[in-house]
Amino acid sequence: MKKEDRLPGVLMSYNMSKAVVLLSGGLDSTTTLAQAIADNNEVVALSFRYGQKHDKELTSASNISKFYNIKHVIVDMNLSMFRSALTDTSINVPEDRNKSDIGSDIPVTYVPARNMIMLSVAVGLSESVNADKIYIGANVVDYSGYPDCRPEFLDSFEKMINVGTKAGVEGRPIKIVCPILNCSKADIVRLGKKLGAPLHLTWSCYNGKDKACGKCDSCKLRLKGFKESGFKDEIEYE
Amino acid sequence: MKKEDRLPGVLMSYNMSKAVVLLSGGLDSTTTLAQAIADNNEVVALSFRYGQKHDKELTSASNISKFYNIKHVIVDMNLSMFRSALTDTSINVPEDRNKSDIGSDIPVTYVPARNMIMLSVAVGLSESVNADKIYIGANVVDYSGYPDCRPEFLDSFEKMINVGTKAGVEGRPIKIVCPILNCSKADIVRLGKKLGAPLHLTWSCYNGKDKACGKCDSCKLRLKGFKESGFKDEIEYE
Repeated sequence: MKKEDRLPGVLMSYNMSKAVVLLSGGLDSTTTLAQAIADNNEVVALSFRYGQKHDKELTSASNISKFYNIKHVIVDMNLSMFRSALTDTSINVPEDRNKSDIGSDIPVTYVPARNMIMLSVAVGLSESVNADKIYIGANVVDYSGYPDCRPEFLDSFEKMINVGTKAGVEGRPIKIVCPILNCSKADIVRLGKKLGAPLHLTWSCYNGKDKACGKCDSCKLRLKGFKESGFKDEIEYE
Repeated sequence: MKKEDRLPGVLMSYNMSKAVVLLSGGLDSTTTLAQAIADNNEVVALSFRYGQKHDKELTSASNISKFYNIKHVIVDMNLSMFRSALTDTSINVPEDRNKSDIGSDIPVTYVPARNMIMLSVAVGLSESVNADKIYIGANVVDYSGYPDCRPEFLDSFEKMINVGTKAGVEGRPIKIVCPILNCSKADIVRLGKKLGAPLHLTWSCYNGKDKACGKCDSCKLRLKGFKESGFKDEIEYE
């Protein structure tokens, strides 16, 4: 093998940086993970068991991590005392809201401070494994009205990281990367497909039945996205 | 009973606001809790089981909450994958460092992003119980060199809360209150004593033996504080 043939590979491994990717197991975070890998990062996926009513997403996150053969950290965190339809069994997940309602208010599926908590844990993990980037599938286009998906929040969080961590204080800032921030759901499907992301392994439905319900906000946004993208959604619906 | 005799009590209950207090079970957080109660807040104490090597602090936090008869929430969170002497059994807690060394660097007992994570959970709990204040016993005077105890971090965190939460977006900002930020350890002991805080129930030692070791950074700072305050430390040392 000629020296110059080997160089790109050698350079690549030297240039590889490390990233923690928040992986819920849904469409957005899986496409975000695919982008983090395409960006030439050594990746650690991070998921949470935070008192969700079902663990379909976590199973998806595990399968997706196996697909990519990457390290997958699951943090257990009992947040079931938080008031939210996703964790409190006394609140039902809304069904069949009008499309025009989705994104117009902060819905009951909002888990207080969820992204803030997950990003904070991602910061701690980044410091522990010397990662300098955190990838998150936050999105402002087809989002469900969550305040902690907005760029104002993410910018403010990034500033906060770098005054509150050993890494930041020592001049090794941790960046928050949001590759799908301004993508429509259709754009996300197209990007995922282009990057070869295993979208068939993802789970978006708020309900934890065998098949996706097709009726909750999350299913509706997903179905609309696939339809507009021109790709077939390969998961099964009721 | 005359009307004016009852008024203060009535006014007090109407004026009471709600606060979440981060309670580790140590001297600083217990004095902070005493201040939150003295400030006329209805208080929910919040503690974490995050993979510490021992749970002496948590036992203290429970006993202190019982002393005050307040609600005490313990969040379980497995952060043992984080690199830190307090969670990683392969790293020893340093003993007998010179007093001049304490506070001069970021020690191995630093748990990556710990205050960030705990404050984020406190934000979620505050939103869930409609609290508008989070009390934290952060301190910059005799601190152990943790970047996430500094006012720059706490200011930045407060700004971030109010762009990233439903409460903030809806105009109900959550404040971070640090009553002992600029106190020396001796000041903290004096304040705790003045407020009637149960300092005899607190635990500061990094080690989890029957009695406090008296040798770790935390014990040394505590012993120095009590000595300078003129009060007797009623816990037992080896």
